[in-house]
Amino acid sequence: MTLHPDRLLPPDPATRKLARELYHAVADLPIVSPHGHTDPRWWGENPRFSDPAQLFVTPDHYVTRMLTSQGVPFEAMGIGAGAETDPRAIWRLFARNFHLFRGTPSRLWIEHALESLFGVTERLSEATADRAYDAIAERLARPEFRPRELYDRFNIEVIATTDGALDDLAQHATLRGSDWSGRVVPTYRPDAVVDPEAPGFAAALDRLGEVTGCDTGSWEGYLAAHRARRAFFISMGTTASDHGHPTPRTADLPEAEARALFDRVRRGGASAANAELFRAQMLTEMARMSLEDGLVMQLHAGSSRGHSDAVRAAYGPDRGFDIPLPSSFTEALRPLLNAVGLDPRLSLILFTLDETTYARELAPLAGVWPCLRLGPPWWFHDSYEGMRRYREAVTETAGFYNTAGFNDDTRALCSIPARHDVARRVDSGFLAELVVTHRLDEDEAFEIAPLLAGDLARQAYRLG
Amino acid sequence: MTLHPDRLLPPDPATRKLARELYHAVADLPIVSPHGHTDPRWWGENPRFSDPAQLFVTPDHYVTRMLTSQGVPFEAMGIGAGAETDPRAIWRLFARNFHLFRGTPSRLWIEHALESLFGVTERLSEATADRAYDAIAERLARPEFRPRELYDRFNIEVIATTDGALDDLAQHATLRGSDWSGRVVPTYRPDAVVDPEAPGFAAALDRLGEVTGCDTGSWEGYLAAHRARRAFFISMGTTASDHGHPTPRTADLPEAEARALFDRVRRGGASAANAELFRAQMLTEMARMSLEDGLVMQLHAGSSRGHSDAVRAAYGPDRGFDIPLPSSFTEALRPLLNAVGLDPRLSLILFTLDETTYARELAPLAGVWPCLRLGPPWWFHDSYEGMRRYREAVTETAGFYNTAGFNDDTRALCSIPARHDVARRVDSGFLAELVVTHRLDEDEAFEIAPLLAGDLARQAYRLG
Amino acid sequence: MTLHPDRLLPPDPATRKLARELYHAVADLPIVSPHGHTDPRWWGENPRFSDPAQLFVTPDHYVTRMLTSQGVPFEAMGIGAGAETDPRAIWRLFARNFHLFRGTPSRLWIEHALESLFGVTERLSEATADRAYDAIAERLARPEFRPRELYDRFNIEVIATTDGALDDLAQHATLRGSDWSGRVVPTYRPDAVVDPEAPGFAAALDRLGEVTGCDTGSWEGYLAAHRARRAFFISMGTTASDHGHPTPRTADLPEAEARALFDRVRRGGASAANAELFRAQMLTEMARMSLEDGLVMQLHAGSSRGHSDAVRAAYGPDRGFDIPLPSSFTEALRPLLNAVGLDPRLSLILFTLDETTYARELAPLAGVWPCLRLGPPWWFHDSYEGMRRYREAVTETAGFYNTAGFNDDTRALCSIPARHDVARRVDSGFLAELVVTHRLDEDEAFEIAPLLAGDLARQAYRLG
Repeated sequence: MTLHPDRLLPPDPATRKLARELYHAVADLPIVSPHGHTDPRWWGENPRFSDPAQLFVTPDHYVTRMLTSQGVPFEAMGIGAGAETDPRAIWRLFARNFHLFRGTPSRLWIEHALESLFGVTERLSEATADRAYDAIAERLARPEFRPRELYDRFNIEVIATTDGALDDLAQHATLRGSDWSGRVVPTYRPDAVVDPEAPGFAAALDRLGEVTGCDTGSWEGYLAAHRARRAFFISMGTTASDHGHPTPRTADLPEAEARALFDRVRRGGASAANAELFRAQMLTEMARMSLEDGLVMQLHAGSSRGHSDAVRAAYGPDRGFDIPLPSSFTEALRPLLNAVGLDPRLSLILFTLDETTYARELAPLAGVWPCLRLGPPWWFHDSYEGMRRYREAVTETAGFYNTAGFNDDTRALCSIPARHDVARRVDSGFLAELVVTHRLDEDEAFEIAPLLAGDLARQAYRLG
Repeated sequence: MTLHPDRLLPPDPATRKLARELYHAVADLPIVSPHGHTDPRWWGENPRFSDPAQLFVTPDHYVTRMLTSQGVPFEAMGIGAGAETDPRAIWRLFARNFHLFRGTPSRLWIEHALESLFGVTERLSEATADRAYDAIAERLARPEFRPRELYDRFNIEVIATTDGALDDLAQHATLRGSDWSGRVVPTYRPDAVVDPEAPGFAAALDRLGEVTGCDTGSWEGYLAAHRARRAFFISMGTTASDHGHPTPRTADLPEAEARALFDRVRRGGASAANAELFRAQMLTEMARMSLEDGLVMQLHAGSSRGHSDAVRAAYGPDRGFDIPLPSSFTEALRPLLNAVGLDPRLSLILFTLDETTYARELAPLAGVWPCLRLGPPWWFHDSYEGMRRYREAVTETAGFYNTAGFNDDTRALCSIPARHDVARRVDSGFLAELVVTHRLDEDEAFEIAPLLAGDLARQAYRLG
Repeated sequence: MTLHPDRLLPPDPATRKLARELYHAVADLPIVSPHGHTDPRWWGENPRFSDPAQLFVTPDHYVTRMLTSQGVPFEAMGIGAGAETDPRAIWRLFARNFHLFRGTPSRLWIEHALESLFGVTERLSEATADRAYDAIAERLARPEFRPRELYDRFNIEVIATTDGALDDLAQHATLRGSDWSGRVVPTYRPDAVVDPEAPGFAAALDRLGEVTGCDTGSWEGYLAAHRARRAFFISMGTTASDHGHPTPRTADLPEAEARALFDRVRRGGASAANAELFRAQMLTEMARMSLEDGLVMQLHAGSSRGHSDAVRAAYGPDRGFDIPLPSSFTEALRPLLNAVGLDPRLSLILFTLDETTYARELAPLAGVWPCLRLGPPWWFHDSYEGMRRYREAVTETAGFYNTAGFNDDTRALCSIPARHDVARRVDSGFLAELVVTHRLDEDEAFEIAPLLAGDLARQAYRLG
């Protein structure tokens, strides 16, 4: 391998030359990471990573899903009862199957980390597996490969974790009390106490009542409990909430109906329709709270989680069996937007797994509603082609200034620089194409590139 | 700025060279504009335009929606009660925010008009706002910048307006009685007397009865009234009707059911389902009338109008809050097509805001039903990327000859040459790519380019 | 014309150079054709083709639909009662309208066959029609232009036909008994005895009972009859079943419900909902049978067949009036996948006419479920742009190894080499772009190209 300096830049020589210049102007800017899933323990306790398999294979659902698709059992990847426990065996399995990742972003992220972080420049294969393993393992033992040191090495300016409403944020407290200067902020993700279909919903609401001292048996008390938790999160640095819903549906029920709906779902056994309506109503309630407390809202909608019952039962969630659904935002967001969408205090960042909504709905919506911003390409679309499709579909209607910069959205720490690097390269290529086709002046492209690389994220997430 | 002669042409040098030659072959052809929204008063009375803000900002919903999306109040754009009345102040606001339009077609259209019509070659910004304003205002005062003179200057061969069924076409009568040689034709757009959910539907039907002398209290009389208005429009030069519906649904009810449905919607308070069914039935009725009187039908389906209740109430329609919906034509058009779709007298031109229908439905439909033609990319898709996606998605299944040429579809007079120019450039680039990849011979590309630039529109709209 | 050696390769010179090398590495590999609609009689009886119109025009629904779209009557193409019977007249009509195919894959396929097979290098037109006709007719009379000789000339390694469940496979028996070495395998396509809405469903089930000796009046007997027919097909070389359904819906009903559903549809007059549910259930039953007998399953879902009632009544099916529908696989496939999707014996190849499902659903599904493979771009998407969109949308999530190679899927024998050639060229261009943008190493591209050209199809269809 050996990372090519021009990778991901457009093939046409004149376009590539300009893209390269644009990329160089932003390549070394600090990383702003306003949405992701790194483990707060890494930042609070700064532990060493145990081994290459734990770093690159076992917890990465992009990696495990591809191996699953070709018949590799979870146990061989170190997952489930009786799983393989030898990290070198897991690593060899991965290396032997590395060809499966040809043409995928995982390949780009992994090779970027292997070379830039661990000095591994041979392509992974059965033949090179052990050499790569040893090189990584050797470095992981060094103190400069602990999370906080990597934060600095990666030139991260701020990184957000994603935390349940009931989380005590103890690791965040620890790191805020430490002398480390890194900025790690929690994100308020209340799905488990908002979704009546979440496992243990009733118990979670009981616990929410205990934690806040609010009566979560009543609609008013339940809302007050959210307000209290949001305030606590804000006191710990939080600037945004995040909501992962199966659909983007919102509702704005009259108060009596909302209360009655809460009573139904609180008792348990709510119908699917009631559960959906309650989630919908809660998005609008959360937006109303945002007007008061200033949290930016994120909505990640459209995934059918746990597509295999057997896999979920045996190996748990987040094993790659989450499959996107067709989505539509136009009518779904209408209740929330009509309730609070013209209020200048609201900021709502939208994400989709259904690319058909980019040009049809999301760009037209964000191109007129002042509260809306478009999040970057999400999950399966966080890729070279995905980013190109996003810019081509979104820009002509929403422009650049209604987009929210890049998210790495990852639990794979070592992939963070690679992911931001891919985005910066693709955006540089896109801007260069606009200039070469005379849709944008060159000085404008140089002004926009750093916006896309960090400033828009800082602004959209109020991280300034 | 200064318009680059190669703008919008493909970056690859060999492709660009051929694209340039194709473009030059069509660049100066007359403009055929068979669908649009210019004000008939311009053509009847030939007034001077008042000021730069009225010409470029206040009435252009592409412009105002982008400013709205970034928090600019309507009042500052000259819209609504107590609005800003100083055109220079509105212009400055626009110029200060001109960076928002980077990467959008509005940017291309505006700069094309500024430079080619008003000699403004500095990029708009706070610093250049006043110079541009003065240059435009100075020229607007000259007689050669009145609408009829611009028509000639733009080399327009024919232009269609869009007119309600109840419109008396007085301005059209005036211009037909004048010695001006321009060809301006009305279009029959009966939505207000077809859609039971349109405001004032019952009163509009009463009025339709008065105007035509038909009994619009009965189904037969109502249809007769349409026939009468269509005949009147045809006498004024009309060659096409246009239908703006939320969905492309059609119906072909037995006569007794259609009559009963009319009775229900005529009384007012029809359910949403009945309203939708009535609109669906009326599309088929209109198609039947087309067999007799020869009007080409246009169907513009798939917009959710007035997405913000508050904006609609305070500032009226067409303020940018119209958002596309998912659409599907396959089953929706079936009743109409099975009723009259094989009749050689019918011509039905389809438009969509849902690009997923291009390759999935519209190209397969237009590629077999003899009555169908595909209209050009509409609204948010009337853009460089939008046109490229259209050609790439549509051509392989429908070919070129089942498409209907270009529409500028605009109420912004000065943008007309720019819009046609964009289409001619993108089509030239697309054709050049076909030749360079040896999917088309060069002489064929030179034969197709003028078809796309005008002939197909002339034929599809029977404007020959 | 004269086929250009670089046709369909990317315009950028460096990319084209590499694409050319990749193409040359696979251009002459044998053709693996695991799904198609060639006439078994061709292989069993090896007849001469009668004339150019029968070879290129009358039976090709891509060709006839385009002519229909421009008002050409079926009769003039040789279809229907009182149709034109002079093949030269039909050919002239076709040649006169050949410009309609500009920009379509039909154009590429036809010219490839005309030149490489019949030495016709003049572009078809009214002026050249007769010369081309004579050249083709002259060669068709020669023995080396009979089907088996073309099989050898085309370097076909194996070709599958598509055969109804009730078919006696007599032609297959004949050819297996002959001394010809070609490999032609039947495919089990049981739609007519699975779809309660198929014409003659009840009679077909009676016949299925007679043929198998099973009691197709009972659910158990009906399933046993399928097993028997599958076993017969397997004895004749079959490796795959194929299922053409309006939607990809599957079901996994409790046995008693499935039996009751069968009883309802067996009696006739089942509701549309019951018919859909029965088809859904049968997909899961077929998957269960595949676990036992090893047939690979293919699912071709999403076409609305016979969009014109009048055309179907007068001219029969497959006249071009089949229009795609919006599709969604995520929830639709869930029952089948949860029933048998983790069983290593299952292989299910998915096809779609709705490209929005590529990146949103199919790639995520095939990128995790071990039983799933993605079939190539189908029908309207079997084209240059269609293949590019497929690779760009699918590869980043599913990789290359979860795709199933190419299908020509045609009843037009002479188009087979052209179709495989188009796929090999587009794939070479795509791989070259990956290399030039440094997403793939050059040696890897050379390793993948032959996989896409044949090996993946051999593996996916168990034709090794």
